[in-house]
Amino acid sequence: MGALLDKAAKFLKQRENNIIVFLLLRAQEPGNKTSYQRGKSGFANYDGSYFDHWLNEIEIAGSKSNRYSFPGETSFFKNLPEPELELVRPDTGLFEVALPDVDIAKEIREAYLSLIPKLCDSRDDRNTYGSSAEMDVLAFQALSLRIHYGALYVAEAKFQENEEKYTSLIRAGDVNGIETALTRPKVEEEIRDRIQKKVSGLQTIMDLKIKVDPQLIMDFYDNTIIPLTKKGQVDYLMKRIN
Amino acid sequence: MGALLDKAAKFLKQRENNIIVFLLLRAQEPGNKTSYQRGKSGFANYDGSYFDHWLNEIEIAGSKSNRYSFPGETSFFKNLPEPELELVRPDTGLFEVALPDVDIAKEIREAYLSLIPKLCDSRDDRNTYGSSAEMDVLAFQALSLRIHYGALYVAEAKFQENEEKYTSLIRAGDVNGIETALTRPKVEEEIRDRIQKKVSGLQTIMDLKIKVDPQLIMDFYDNTIIPLTKKGQVDYLMKRIN
Repeated sequence: MGALLDKAAKFLKQRENNIIVFLLLRAQEPGNKTSYQRGKSGFANYDGSYFDHWLNEIEIAGSKSNRYSFPGETSFFKNLPEPELELVRPDTGLFEVALPDVDIAKEIREAYLSLIPKLCDSRDDRNTYGSSAEMDVLAFQALSLRIHYGALYVAEAKFQENEEKYTSLIRAGDVNGIETALTRPKVEEEIRDRIQKKVSGLQTIMDLKIKVDPQLIMDFYDNTIIPLTKKGQVDYLMKRIN
Repeated sequence: MGALLDKAAKFLKQRENNIIVFLLLRAQEPGNKTSYQRGKSGFANYDGSYFDHWLNEIEIAGSKSNRYSFPGETSFFKNLPEPELELVRPDTGLFEVALPDVDIAKEIREAYLSLIPKLCDSRDDRNTYGSSAEMDVLAFQALSLRIHYGALYVAEAKFQENEEKYTSLIRAGDVNGIETALTRPKVEEEIRDRIQKKVSGLQTIMDLKIKVDPQLIMDFYDNTIIPLTKKGQVDYLMKRIN
């Protein structure tokens, strides 16, 4: 494994913890379905949901602090305020031209919101909207970073390891071929195993009141996180060569 | 155990998880000591630290969403914007008159900041200030809620269970006597045991790169969290009867 792929794999593995922990803590709060409904936020002159409002506030604060200047950090809302800090951008090793085109935050948000009714119970308690939205935003941000980071760094690492093969697939516009080349079934199997162990181990040790079926999170990895990461990787690679 | 004390104990036990998880995740980032230094935030015309700036942004957003209208949620910064949502305050069972006087957010912030050099390594990397400040604020908020919630609800529950005794201690201004009455060594011993198991279990399962000595968090409970909670309880009780 090359150095860039090794670094990216370690990052993704550590960030799994954030995703799992935030999902488990989110599950402790009521489902709060009204908090996701447009026009029911309770804020005057605000069309979005309570969740949207909190996400927007946090993204505004993050943008001022340069959060979205880092490759992989991708906001859902656009039109955020300009970064207020001097940009000290790390040497990422990425092909920077392609970065702005890799943005699947919208799909990630949709996928996250459709997980909620399966993750949480059906209680709806306005007094807990703050607690649930806080975890929602943390979980969404952890997911968005994981998926975009995987899309950029893992794709770049794989491209560098097999430039000839990817170049011909990209030139041929062979999206299926690229996806196949990107797929490593053994790694996906390892991820599934780790998720299962982490979900069941963490909630046991935390002695959580409301338990989450590890299969739900494994399925979310299989059906959402991994496919969306691949979609982002394809988006990145299609722009990788001119 | 009365219903109020039982409810409060369960809340505190669940919130232990948030504190421990955020501290463990914070420890994965560099110590970033410059991010706590006043005047070095990088924001134009801002005197505080990078950490202060982020804390203030998050508290401003929280205040608009009524976060600080809930007993136990206590901001460090004052002068925050007014809540923008209609207040649906839960029936807390607390003696509301005393609430505004229980505010030890300043002490909690200081205590948290002095934990950082022991919790984190000595690296200082501006590109990770966002990640470290995010966890700092989550940890500070979890600590503040735990301590203030314990101060209010546990004190009220104990007062209700032994009103006569507490009334005479309060009337006599016997702070030491109140602290002694509040202290349950067996519960404190149980907390220590749980912290030890949770810190060591959680970081093993998460396979964290940087491990935290469980003793550090146990000591933080012993020397900071529990004493500050008691200080808050005394503050609450001294205002409890007129």
